[in-house]
Amino acid sequence: MTLRLAAIVESLAGEFEARLVGDPDILIERLSPIESARPQDLAFLSHAKYLNKLAQSAAACVIVAPAVQEVAIKRGACIVVDDPYYYFARVTQLWKQHHAPVAVPQVHPAALIDPTAQVAKDASIAAFACIGAGAVIGSGARVAEHCVIGPNAAVGANSRLSARVTVAEGCTVGERCIIHPGAVIGADGFGFASHEDRWEKIEQLGAVRIGNDVEIGANTCIDRGALQDTVVEDGVKLDNLIQIGHNVRIGKHTAMAGCVGVAGSTNIGAHCTVGGGAVILGHLSLADHVHISAASVVTRSIWKPGHYTGLFPIDDNGTWEKNAATLKQLYGLRERLKQAEKILGKIQEKS
Amino acid sequence: MTLRLAAIVESLAGEFEARLVGDPDILIERLSPIESARPQDLAFLSHAKYLNKLAQSAAACVIVAPAVQEVAIKRGACIVVDDPYYYFARVTQLWKQHHAPVAVPQVHPAALIDPTAQVAKDASIAAFACIGAGAVIGSGARVAEHCVIGPNAAVGANSRLSARVTVAEGCTVGERCIIHPGAVIGADGFGFASHEDRWEKIEQLGAVRIGNDVEIGANTCIDRGALQDTVVEDGVKLDNLIQIGHNVRIGKHTAMAGCVGVAGSTNIGAHCTVGGGAVILGHLSLADHVHISAASVVTRSIWKPGHYTGLFPIDDNGTWEKNAATLKQLYGLRERLKQAEKILGKIQEKS
Amino acid sequence: MTLRLAAIVESLAGEFEARLVGDPDILIERLSPIESARPQDLAFLSHAKYLNKLAQSAAACVIVAPAVQEVAIKRGACIVVDDPYYYFARVTQLWKQHHAPVAVPQVHPAALIDPTAQVAKDASIAAFACIGAGAVIGSGARVAEHCVIGPNAAVGANSRLSARVTVAEGCTVGERCIIHPGAVIGADGFGFASHEDRWEKIEQLGAVRIGNDVEIGANTCIDRGALQDTVVEDGVKLDNLIQIGHNVRIGKHTAMAGCVGVAGSTNIGAHCTVGGGAVILGHLSLADHVHISAASVVTRSIWKPGHYTGLFPIDDNGTWEKNAATLKQLYGLRERLKQAEKILGKIQEKS
Repeated sequence: MTLRLAAIVESLAGEFEARLVGDPDILIERLSPIESARPQDLAFLSHAKYLNKLAQSAAACVIVAPAVQEVAIKRGACIVVDDPYYYFARVTQLWKQHHAPVAVPQVHPAALIDPTAQVAKDASIAAFACIGAGAVIGSGARVAEHCVIGPNAAVGANSRLSARVTVAEGCTVGERCIIHPGAVIGADGFGFASHEDRWEKIEQLGAVRIGNDVEIGANTCIDRGALQDTVVEDGVKLDNLIQIGHNVRIGKHTAMAGCVGVAGSTNIGAHCTVGGGAVILGHLSLADHVHISAASVVTRSIWKPGHYTGLFPIDDNGTWEKNAATLKQLYGLRERLKQAEKILGKIQEKS
Repeated sequence: MTLRLAAIVESLAGEFEARLVGDPDILIERLSPIESARPQDLAFLSHAKYLNKLAQSAAACVIVAPAVQEVAIKRGACIVVDDPYYYFARVTQLWKQHHAPVAVPQVHPAALIDPTAQVAKDASIAAFACIGAGAVIGSGARVAEHCVIGPNAAVGANSRLSARVTVAEGCTVGERCIIHPGAVIGADGFGFASHEDRWEKIEQLGAVRIGNDVEIGANTCIDRGALQDTVVEDGVKLDNLIQIGHNVRIGKHTAMAGCVGVAGSTNIGAHCTVGGGAVILGHLSLADHVHISAASVVTRSIWKPGHYTGLFPIDDNGTWEKNAATLKQLYGLRERLKQAEKILGKIQEKS
Repeated sequence: MTLRLAAIVESLAGEFEARLVGDPDILIERLSPIESARPQDLAFLSHAKYLNKLAQSAAACVIVAPAVQEVAIKRGACIVVDDPYYYFARVTQLWKQHHAPVAVPQVHPAALIDPTAQVAKDASIAAFACIGAGAVIGSGARVAEHCVIGPNAAVGANSRLSARVTVAEGCTVGERCIIHPGAVIGADGFGFASHEDRWEKIEQLGAVRIGNDVEIGANTCIDRGALQDTVVEDGVKLDNLIQIGHNVRIGKHTAMAGCVGVAGSTNIGAHCTVGGGAVILGHLSLADHVHISAASVVTRSIWKPGHYTGLFPIDDNGTWEKNAATLKQLYGLRERLKQAEKILGKIQEKS
């Protein structure tokens, strides 16, 4: 399937002041990275630093910023717009919409819906999905195969749950959310009281509340609160295989890459980013606009916006072994240096 | 739903010597953290160090230790008991029991049970669950939607499996276990023989044996053994997204937080704790009562009980960059310090 | 069930030059580790360094290398072959084949297969599996319970998908692959354009292409590409709970242990190994034959084959605290050392 270049630009005309330079009747067959684009493809140039890729690109058309339009126009067709990457994001959405088969809302006969559940007339429930007593599925929501929506849970309007997502009892998902396969919303938080060398379960009586426009990756887990709710605010984006402990709060528009772990009762601000594999310990606070590098371990609260890192630099194994062994004596080395400085000081005094 | 204060205390009277001070007819509407408790709530004070929260609490009643009872009684109603946190854990259990709808055991008509499987009369099997040939489901066990219990696997009495748990062929789960959604018990261990630059699969012929009172988090994986079984002993608590390799043994009442990885054939003692995101390499032994900090990497056996840590301290990115770059020269710095000390020594000798 | 020793050796006679020393009629009841083998068991000795275990083993027969055959023959029955570990791997396969019940291919009546899907006549589709429109299931392939094969996805001949595996729209799995429960192939990559402090979704228009003989662990996630495909080449082995970002390429016969995270657009060579819990950042290249230690973080491309490591050595917590605190002053220590060296130099000049 193809899209006319002019059709793309027109579709987004209400949102962007974009100028199409070149033949509006070009048929676009594919969206592609600029370096591998073929003559039927639409590409984009995100940064002027990749300018050399532009001239060499075989793309039918390239989305560019005004700063590079001269070079772009020399090459051929282009769309000139202030934020090419954002424009491109919107084009991918158009593309998907245009190419996806029109889904007629339906409740599959092999879905299992409790008679007390409220499913909007235009919601879709796929085969083998289970909707519990008192659960609410909003208008336009789509619940894929093998999802389990627990008793009194809610999925907001136009949210899309992929196959086998669990939204456990009493948990709520906002509007326009996207949840990928295997995600578990509302399993018990990890709470035990130690008693006579055993662990006594603290029943987790809170739930999970997820805002609007949240995306949750495959096999990611968000635990229900112990007494109060775990909260994920509007616009948060969580990648795959992330663990969010009980009673955590994640502020608006914060994004976390894959394999992050956030321990219980931690309060993360808005507009933060957390790199893949990072670990954030429990009962901490992170301010808004805090950025944690991948694989870093947050062991204390961070009150100041900024970029924080803590990871051991990788090296060839031999060099690492030497440095790592020395690291275990580091405190001792400091004391020895102090001592040497002291002696040096005395020598200097004498002379 | 509410619970009379006296009813709570009476229910636990056989287990605790607890003294209720105040009106036994107070109706409790909610269990709450002490700082946010409302006038209908029951709260607890875990440590005397939070004493200032006690006086300010609006809770209907607070569970406290004898040491702080004076302050507590001045404030209002309280339950005085030796271990308030443990008492509170039991109250959460009471609360859940009281509020959960009574589940009548049933085998859902959309469950798929092999005719050779043995399902106890009072066990529950939910819709779309599959119980394999020769599998055994114990008395009072509950198997939720989309679980797959493999051939000859067993689930012990009163264990509860949440939605889509896999217990693969021949694996056994003890009594009173709780397994959260997406957990995979008994996938193949990661075993290959290298041969001519390819990997030849070593079929994993062992199983997984899980003791009693074990809790296993959402999407956690416990691999089957290569030749012998992987073993999780009684009372072990595993959080979400944990990976347990083949032939691992985890001793009684050990607890691991989320995202921990334990490589194959490692033997972990009893009463250990492992912090979130920690990695324990394969073929190691950890003694009983070993405590590993979050995000630490255990690269050698630990024979002595104690608390062990290894993680790079987080810092603002600029400072980290300087220190990390220097770290790559650390061994060299030590050699230079040695050299400086030597020269200093000679200078001192002379003078 | 048992296997005659001679039957084992004969079955593999076409592949190996193996010499059986001892009674060919011995009935083997079990495959076992050499140290715990009982008198009916077949064991193997992988390295000459474990020679002391050989003499003490109670095994009915031991698979050994020619270098240790003298000791082995003195002990009792043995199979002498060049690569005992590889031979043993093949024996485990024989064993499993012999003991597994013969599976008659069938499409379960509770499976849901779109009329436009092409399912090979000898493929197996288990209960509650869903095969989408235009999907292709190859000859001899086995799709277990609760799998979801999306529209236009393909599973190659003789591949085995365990329970609840997702292969999303348009993604392809090669021949003879093994995919463990909960794996998600083809969820959306994590792609957003930042716009006015919000995240705008970049629809992920690529797919995932998986080669032949690939094994994918439980709950592992491989994201679909943004514009082009994410590619996993032939013979790759991925353990459990691994995250592979969009547009990653993993070269032939590379193996990764559990909990590894690979960020988007990274290109990993062939014959690499990645230890458990390692993190590989995005947009990097790793050469063929690169080996990354467990829990190491790859922050830059690696162009040279070799063994690379970066992890903080574990220590008792007290020692770690001292060293970690000092680490935050490391750059300062280096500057102080430089200064001390300078002064020393001047003193030496004078004298």
